Amino acid sequence: MAKRKGIQTIVLESKPCILSTTSIVGPKEGNGPLREFFDLVLEDDTNGMNSFEKAESSMLNFAVSDCINKYGIGKESINYLFAGDLLNQLTSANFAARQIGIPFYGIYGACSTFTEALSLGAVFVDGGYADYVISATSSHFSSAERQFRFPLEFGNQRSTTSQWTVTGAGAVLIGKSNENYKFPCITHVTTGKVKDYGVTDPNNMGAAMAPAAVDTIAIHLSDTGRKPEYYDLIVTGDLGRLGRGLTEDLLLKHGYNIKDNYFDCGEQIYYNQEQNTGCGGSGCGCSAVVGSGYLYKKLMKGDLKRVLLVATGALLSSTSTMQGESIPGIAHAVAIERI
Amino acid sequence: MAKRKGIQTIVLESKPCILSTTSIVGPKEGNGPLREFFDLVLEDDTNGMNSFEKAESSMLNFAVSDCINKYGIGKESINYLFAGDLLNQLTSANFAARQIGIPFYGIYGACSTFTEALSLGAVFVDGGYADYVISATSSHFSSAERQFRFPLEFGNQRSTTSQWTVTGAGAVLIGKSNENYKFPCITHVTTGKVKDYGVTDPNNMGAAMAPAAVDTIAIHLSDTGRKPEYYDLIVTGDLGRLGRGLTEDLLLKHGYNIKDNYFDCGEQIYYNQEQNTGCGGSGCGCSAVVGSGYLYKKLMKGDLKRVLLVATGALLSSTSTMQGESIPGIAHAVAIERI
Repeated sequence: MAKRKGIQTIVLESKPCILSTTSIVGPKEGNGPLREFFDLVLEDDTNGMNSFEKAESSMLNFAVSDCINKYGIGKESINYLFAGDLLNQLTSANFAARQIGIPFYGIYGACSTFTEALSLGAVFVDGGYADYVISATSSHFSSAERQFRFPLEFGNQRSTTSQWTVTGAGAVLIGKSNENYKFPCITHVTTGKVKDYGVTDPNNMGAAMAPAAVDTIAIHLSDTGRKPEYYDLIVTGDLGRLGRGLTEDLLLKHGYNIKDNYFDCGEQIYYNQEQNTGCGGSGCGCSAVVGSGYLYKKLMKGDLKRVLLVATGALLSSTSTMQGESIPGIAHAVAIERI
Repeated sequence: MAKRKGIQTIVLESKPCILSTTSIVGPKEGNGPLREFFDLVLEDDTNGMNSFEKAESSMLNFAVSDCINKYGIGKESINYLFAGDLLNQLTSANFAARQIGIPFYGIYGACSTFTEALSLGAVFVDGGYADYVISATSSHFSSAERQFRFPLEFGNQRSTTSQWTVTGAGAVLIGKSNENYKFPCITHVTTGKVKDYGVTDPNNMGAAMAPAAVDTIAIHLSDTGRKPEYYDLIVTGDLGRLGRGLTEDLLLKHGYNIKDNYFDCGEQIYYNQEQNTGCGGSGCGCSAVVGSGYLYKKLMKGDLKRVLLVATGALLSSTSTMQGESIPGIAHAVAIERI
């Protein structure tokens, strides 16, 4: 089949483009090294709402609406919204979708959700099933912390391997390939399998997700016949400092050296030492704001030409952890290129 | 765009087929009126596992594996698994996907997830992005009850408008259109928007979901130019007795009379009076087992030729309900036809 290459990769022959993006983050992310690349930095992470869940949903709503407005089309032109978040029952995405009113597919892949959304959106556009789609995800430190860990008021001590859930939302408008290729295009999609190497520590997500990242990156390179240096940057979602190191080492064993062009969104979004963010950021807002902020702007400017974005998700629940299960991981890759 | 019709409908020109299905249910569903249509009825709803969550995941795993085996291909031929369930972070689907080892997209649309899975799977096959996909969902009374409502041991009184979460899993194998059209085909996909008419009672899901069902059915009929009687059966997922009545009445106001060929999976899966199931069944296992059991077998036999399956989801979480939010609903339709 011409649209498939290797065992897990789709080639998007029409090269759907990313026509606009919007990123919105909380104050802590706005104090990090990527500040200048975000469209909006909130001064107050409640965004004027009376709960953190509603704050998160309002941020996702803003990202989607602003992303559409930027490109200058009406929202009735958007055929689908692919969106998700970390909250139980995708509360943020569902309530944002209620306000936005675009036909909606809710998706969940923990922190891998951003590239899941990009993959599905790009396939729908490439196949001619949509003229325009929005792919968007969000997360919020305070809503995630109390759902997955402890009430904030409890003030629990953080582990050295912990990561800090990013407060932010990112949205991407994908459309048919564009005149003069002035926009970055999604050229390949490599969909991951669930990988589980038996990590059981929910404070060490990087180690739980690294095997999935390694598997998806290795398969993408093998499927496409590309070498790591084909990409200006291979970007993982939110493995953090520890998971990034593991991924580099494990890929070396597969014969791939990515150390010179490897970037992890989680590791780079904060000044980890000064901002007390442990191994780095996490949450499906992390790759969303770095992808739709930093990476997209670098791609538009021409500083980057070829990026492999691999968001990674840890597929645990507090129930599965209490029942003694280990933490499965998954990673989906999309190749974004200026052509 | 030829692949789109009207405002929210996709025409699948290659007519992807449903090549096999598997349904597995618990003992209560096995005592209901559709018993003969299920492939496996468990005697014990723990399925030999030490938690209800693991039981649900094992049922989903069985449904997927058995569905692949029935058609006689290896699981390495399956390009994608689209799956989801009701549990937080899609625990059942994630852990089943870990065992199954097929590239995996997790999806969530509450009880609408089954037709979301069918929609995405059919599009991937139609577009040539996959040779074979599995679409599958599950739910379990005991895992859902304690997550969404009360611990089972508490023995709370049920409201008269309550529904009973189906213990079951259904899987569907979708492939390219087949010689002699001996299999039912997915011909159209109509994707829903989130609808919210302000219902706030989490014990009255039928009323919360009915507006979404009405919207999606009316748009499907308008987009395709079909009349209700084109279909042998218009099937909603799990509105129950109350939601079914509301849907009939509201569609009449849109000018569509579906009373003569309308079937609700939730209302029909139990002997509601005798089995004390209130308004009927619910959960994303409900439309999954009725769709992959009853409907598929009727379609294969030729008793039914044209079915519009419209699974409906109530997009609440216990957190959003406690924060005073109303209950948004969504419904996705797929047309399944013998041609």
